[in-house]
Amino acid sequence: MDLNSDLGEGYGRWALGDDAALLEVVTSANVACGFHAGDPATIDRTVRTAVEHGVAVGAQVSYPDLVGFGRRELEVAPADLSADVLYQLGALEAFARAAGGRVRYVKPHGALYNRIARDPVQAAAVVEAIRRYDPALPLLTLPGSAAEAAAAEAGVRAVAEGFADRAYTPEGRLVPRTEPGAVLHDPERVAARALRMATEGRVEAAGGGEVAVEVRSLCVHGDTPGAVELAQAVRAALDGAGVTLEPFA
Amino acid sequence: MDLNSDLGEGYGRWALGDDAALLEVVTSANVACGFHAGDPATIDRTVRTAVEHGVAVGAQVSYPDLVGFGRRELEVAPADLSADVLYQLGALEAFARAAGGRVRYVKPHGALYNRIARDPVQAAAVVEAIRRYDPALPLLTLPGSAAEAAAAEAGVRAVAEGFADRAYTPEGRLVPRTEPGAVLHDPERVAARALRMATEGRVEAAGGGEVAVEVRSLCVHGDTPGAVELAQAVRAALDGAGVTLEPFA
Amino acid sequence: MDLNSDLGEGYGRWALGDDAALLEVVTSANVACGFHAGDPATIDRTVRTAVEHGVAVGAQVSYPDLVGFGRRELEVAPADLSADVLYQLGALEAFARAAGGRVRYVKPHGALYNRIARDPVQAAAVVEAIRRYDPALPLLTLPGSAAEAAAAEAGVRAVAEGFADRAYTPEGRLVPRTEPGAVLHDPERVAARALRMATEGRVEAAGGGEVAVEVRSLCVHGDTPGAVELAQAVRAALDGAGVTLEPFA
Amino acid sequence: MDLNSDLGEGYGRWALGDDAALLEVVTSANVACGFHAGDPATIDRTVRTAVEHGVAVGAQVSYPDLVGFGRRELEVAPADLSADVLYQLGALEAFARAAGGRVRYVKPHGALYNRIARDPVQAAAVVEAIRRYDPALPLLTLPGSAAEAAAAEAGVRAVAEGFADRAYTPEGRLVPRTEPGAVLHDPERVAARALRMATEGRVEAAGGGEVAVEVRSLCVHGDTPGAVELAQAVRAALDGAGVTLEPFA
Repeated sequence: MDLNSDLGEGYGRWALGDDAALLEVVTSANVACGFHAGDPATIDRTVRTAVEHGVAVGAQVSYPDLVGFGRRELEVAPADLSADVLYQLGALEAFARAAGGRVRYVKPHGALYNRIARDPVQAAAVVEAIRRYDPALPLLTLPGSAAEAAAAEAGVRAVAEGFADRAYTPEGRLVPRTEPGAVLHDPERVAARALRMATEGRVEAAGGGEVAVEVRSLCVHGDTPGAVELAQAVRAALDGAGVTLEPFA
Repeated sequence: MDLNSDLGEGYGRWALGDDAALLEVVTSANVACGFHAGDPATIDRTVRTAVEHGVAVGAQVSYPDLVGFGRRELEVAPADLSADVLYQLGALEAFARAAGGRVRYVKPHGALYNRIARDPVQAAAVVEAIRRYDPALPLLTLPGSAAEAAAAEAGVRAVAEGFADRAYTPEGRLVPRTEPGAVLHDPERVAARALRMATEGRVEAAGGGEVAVEVRSLCVHGDTPGAVELAQAVRAALDGAGVTLEPFA
Repeated sequence: MDLNSDLGEGYGRWALGDDAALLEVVTSANVACGFHAGDPATIDRTVRTAVEHGVAVGAQVSYPDLVGFGRRELEVAPADLSADVLYQLGALEAFARAAGGRVRYVKPHGALYNRIARDPVQAAAVVEAIRRYDPALPLLTLPGSAAEAAAAEAGVRAVAEGFADRAYTPEGRLVPRTEPGAVLHDPERVAARALRMATEGRVEAAGGGEVAVEVRSLCVHGDTPGAVELAQAVRAALDGAGVTLEPFA
Repeated sequence: MDLNSDLGEGYGRWALGDDAALLEVVTSANVACGFHAGDPATIDRTVRTAVEHGVAVGAQVSYPDLVGFGRRELEVAPADLSADVLYQLGALEAFARAAGGRVRYVKPHGALYNRIARDPVQAAAVVEAIRRYDPALPLLTLPGSAAEAAAAEAGVRAVAEGFADRAYTPEGRLVPRTEPGAVLHDPERVAARALRMATEGRVEAAGGGEVAVEVRSLCVHGDTPGAVELAQAVRAALDGAGVTLEPFA
């Protein structure tokens, strides 16, 4: 199993999240590429440290929206979106190579992640950028999403990720954040869910019953209160059960 | 001899210069990387076309200053400047590779070009970025500049460029633009100067006499009135005299 | 009748449109406020010249999107959109006052204009900014739009504008640009339509018949080929028929 | 005596400093205007809260440099700098008026503050913006600075500010931050110095002896560890000695 988290999401004077703590927990780092966060000097530091820790570096590509932190959907033309993704991929790669590593995968950020989970047009534009850049680069995404389908069509590898701190519907979809109980905060319970996903590929569904959640990576968040503790609890549970944690890429 | 020019200096809705005409003239294209000009979609189009024309793609790296078009000096810390250059280099490389090419050289833009011609600290920061990225990547720069010295010290290749439309002092320096006669506009005269630089490595100095200007590349401008005609005149003169025009990189 | 046009849409080194020619034609200038175009120095020059010509200055507020020129819809929260509009209004006002004038009206730009024509939530957010800033400031908008309704509800004056170079449906809506014949290019025909709108409040509808288009302002474009000629033809037709041209605000 | 501090220096997702705590301490708030920090929604919240607390709102204008937090000098042309200041002043004013207040003064931020303390050209450009906007608006600045001189020449009121946590030379200049002992951290000692400045217009100089520091406002910082405690200690000392704290503007 792989644990991924968003890292390097500061910008110049502004810091965000506890990158040092998370780099002790995760096996893959989704590094901000400058469009929603991550100025060049921050990227440089983040990538160096990730490579030193043996953590895989992924490109956390975004809509160009610093002020909105990439959390607002944008009606961008496919060719422009593809170019935006290529630009960010290349920029991050420069730091990865300078640090003796490589960009290992792509994970879109925020509103772009959510948009390409359901919009085949923007999903295809993101996948097209990966195909042009390096068709062997995997795309980390939601199982059953439009992004997964677009990747399959283009011959790009989609890697499924799950969220131990999010409620799932009986159909295996995430319960929208706007609904009560959509986000879980209890470290013990989240860790238990992570363990079941990792070892059985199943998790309790909202409203009872179980649902199959077969994923190769689990996402842990780092920029909310208590998030590092949650991530550490997940890691400890997996380690304790003998689950091998390693990058998928 | 090589002819280089700035290209891809539009931004989104805004165009600048006659890239199509210049790509018929030059052998090397200094492509804007997004910090003073050049949004991702513009970079994509520019690089594709350059590669199709067999024109070498260079990274026209800049201070981050869209509104000032990179023409204003910035007191940036060396580590930040290095990271800015790495970021731009990598971003451009993604498009170059996607188009079947490579970034072949680096030419800083505007105020950064002028600053590193005289400031060893910022010059070393730019060179350090190149060294970390790919020490084999040449830096196009002014002969006798601090940038040239910084490159020599770091084992990075500096390639000398000349300006056929600029007056030179007897010491081989450019006459500052603020002085009368610093910039030449007559195509015939500029072409004749270019030819002498290319074939004899010498040019008439301001105030009389001659000066050695031994350069591997000549810069032609593209975004001022009459500039394309000037560039075409230079190209015609060199072609007519049997000078082989080809990228230096 | 009033003639309005977009002005000041350059940005730093980049120019757009023939502002000097348009300022001889129009009575109201929709001045870009920095979010899709218009750096401070450009705003300063544009507003000074508009005030000198007796042309009314309006705030052409936009989504924050330089690279997309404000032409891409953004899923922005209402409070953020209101704040964005307030920010731009105030910024423009500083230049208007320094030039001895005032901001006389608001006309949203591009994707924001289109969005608030149909989206009551974003429309209300724009109107809320105007209400907080100065409830007496009119909003220039499409008749029958959500923006007009939101203004009415908040006690803000909505001023109707028409487009002489756009085809109208029999219901008085604009024919979408994607349909053939949606945009008219013949100066004579456009001028004739402008004159009928101004004098009779009617215009020929697409597919035959007539439709009422009662507007207080006509929009003329300035940044497309032939647009200045079109604007001049409209102005000449109105002047020739004795229609008094003056700002609505 | 007045106590001023920088406020509203977050940007979108990123927060900075403890604005709530500082608003209980200071009488004047230097509010970031969007060029180094302060997106519109943050400005809106900050200004509303300041006005509710009876804290005077000042425009903390800056070079356009989000990534550098306005801490890097920029070789900007005077007309462009003036326009940048006007733009920020107006933008902030919109929020101040909407909150029932007004912008009461101008305090340049970071590198711009330091630059206009010694550069008469950029100082005159900042003052020219104030003169065009509202000649009655005071400029908060360092006593004996080029900014003070430029204000005097233009008929703009300069208000002197002091720094209780900075060492002064016997000539009344600030000891540069690069020298040891330039910044004081002990709350008791800083508070004592603030009190002497406020009641006697004098303070102990570096190296012994005393120096006259006659100021109308004391600056307290808010974004460094322990800074709020320092500010509270200063406030307590002044309150305890019966010094009336009120905005200068």
